Amino acid sequence: MSGYRLTRRVQFYETDVAGIVHFSWFYRYMEEAEHALWREAGLSIHPHGSEIGWPRVSASFDFHRALRFEDEFDVCLRIVELTSRRICYACVLQKQNLKMATGTMTVACVRKRPDRTLEAIDIPAEIASRFEVYRQ
Amino acid sequence: MSGYRLTRRVQFYETDVAGIVHFSWFYRYMEEAEHALWREAGLSIHPHGSEIGWPRVSASFDFHRALRFEDEFDVCLRIVELTSRRICYACVLQKQNLKMATGTMTVACVRKRPDRTLEAIDIPAEIASRFEVYRQ
Amino acid sequence: MSGYRLTRRVQFYETDVAGIVHFSWFYRYMEEAEHALWREAGLSIHPHGSEIGWPRVSASFDFHRALRFEDEFDVCLRIVELTSRRICYACVLQKQNLKMATGTMTVACVRKRPDRTLEAIDIPAEIASRFEVYRQ
Amino acid sequence: MSGYRLTRRVQFYETDVAGIVHFSWFYRYMEEAEHALWREAGLSIHPHGSEIGWPRVSASFDFHRALRFEDEFDVCLRIVELTSRRICYACVLQKQNLKMATGTMTVACVRKRPDRTLEAIDIPAEIASRFEVYRQ
Repeated sequence: MSGYRLTRRVQFYETDVAGIVHFSWFYRYMEEAEHALWREAGLSIHPHGSEIGWPRVSASFDFHRALRFEDEFDVCLRIVELTSRRICYACVLQKQNLKMATGTMTVACVRKRPDRTLEAIDIPAEIASRFEVYRQ
Repeated sequence: MSGYRLTRRVQFYETDVAGIVHFSWFYRYMEEAEHALWREAGLSIHPHGSEIGWPRVSASFDFHRALRFEDEFDVCLRIVELTSRRICYACVLQKQNLKMATGTMTVACVRKRPDRTLEAIDIPAEIASRFEVYRQ
Repeated sequence: MSGYRLTRRVQFYETDVAGIVHFSWFYRYMEEAEHALWREAGLSIHPHGSEIGWPRVSASFDFHRALRFEDEFDVCLRIVELTSRRICYACVLQKQNLKMATGTMTVACVRKRPDRTLEAIDIPAEIASRFEVYRQ
Repeated sequence: MSGYRLTRRVQFYETDVAGIVHFSWFYRYMEEAEHALWREAGLSIHPHGSEIGWPRVSASFDFHRALRFEDEFDVCLRIVELTSRRICYACVLQKQNLKMATGTMTVACVRKRPDRTLEAIDIPAEIASRFEVYRQ
């Protein structure tokens, strides 16, 4: 698996008083597509009881056009880099053929220590083997 | 402790395209006041590593008037019933002297079993002793 | 139209540190099903530029079981009362055959006055004619 | 005005099943500080009935450490660039003296046309005159 296209509709509670989707929701849309990609690869990013986690290292969006209540749109997520410890995604939100927003997100593989601190670790082989960098 | 008054301002992301606070936020406001009440009593409702939890059993609101961006309002929370296993709160949201909404919430004390299921238990004495029913 | 069944999966951002869906989300799930019901009836509950709105008058939930990350569930919404000015819904959230939560919601038809205050009005005939009370 | 420090506590509904604040909240924290900065300057970023809006052009965060339930933290926002049409902010989230996250956000001044499209315009003088770039 190297990418996923999620189709989604804007919900009422995702809009704000300016009449458009609040920008914080775009980061959630991107993460929804990530988790759908993992499920498509036969994995859960957060299986119950796992000591491994995937905190976000960075995330960004450039916003090109506004989304509105009940708009249908696609979240196109692609793996653009895969190192021993991190996955970098690129994301495009499209409504029909219009590019609405462009994002990136990097996540790291960590182990949760008993004291709740997080230790960066190598991505387990059984996870890394399911993913690859997207090639056009 | 038998009650708490939380003062709060409406944030932009709490509004929706109808120009008012989305109704789902009132339940969060009520819970914010609950957790502030617990802190005032010297407690955290969710201390790290605790095997005890406080899931919501029921919650309701009657909405009288709309809240808007940057409105300042008070969340007045009172304990109206305290049994061996549950706490019932009543809540009034006010803007100046106007009653905006009236809510109720009941929470139960549970222990989390290793298999993630929840078992209703008596409220520990060191918690129950900090609270009492509000009397006018 | 008198009811709608929405199938939905729990998203990561809907969970909280207790490991379950935060209770405020159930009200959003109920509203998602309402808006899907309206679309199924050929309507939008918030068409652009409309002076008519549907603020919530009251909403409640009894929570029976916890929902968790990636759980699939159904939101079964039914119209249980339809007056000249209000619609009352009943809602059951189910995971497979388990009843997870039971809710109610009443919404009123209002006109927005230029000064932003809301005036209760009769439900327009072209809307009322699309809905009816659910009968078993 | 060229900067603002907002003090804030993590709310329960801002956490997720991984036990930490969901990353989408950091963008909301940054915006909260922006709106507080505007109020401190005697302005509202969204006065009722205004035809001017401030959509986000881009926003990013690097996440250094996790925030948890009831953590107290500061959101330090500074204006780092001010052009005729845009404001760029830099943001640091700190818990005590620890840097938790570092963000940026650029917003543009727009006029809402009657057809809902947005037209980029110069920042009105009465707004631009209240702000300046932060200098150490």
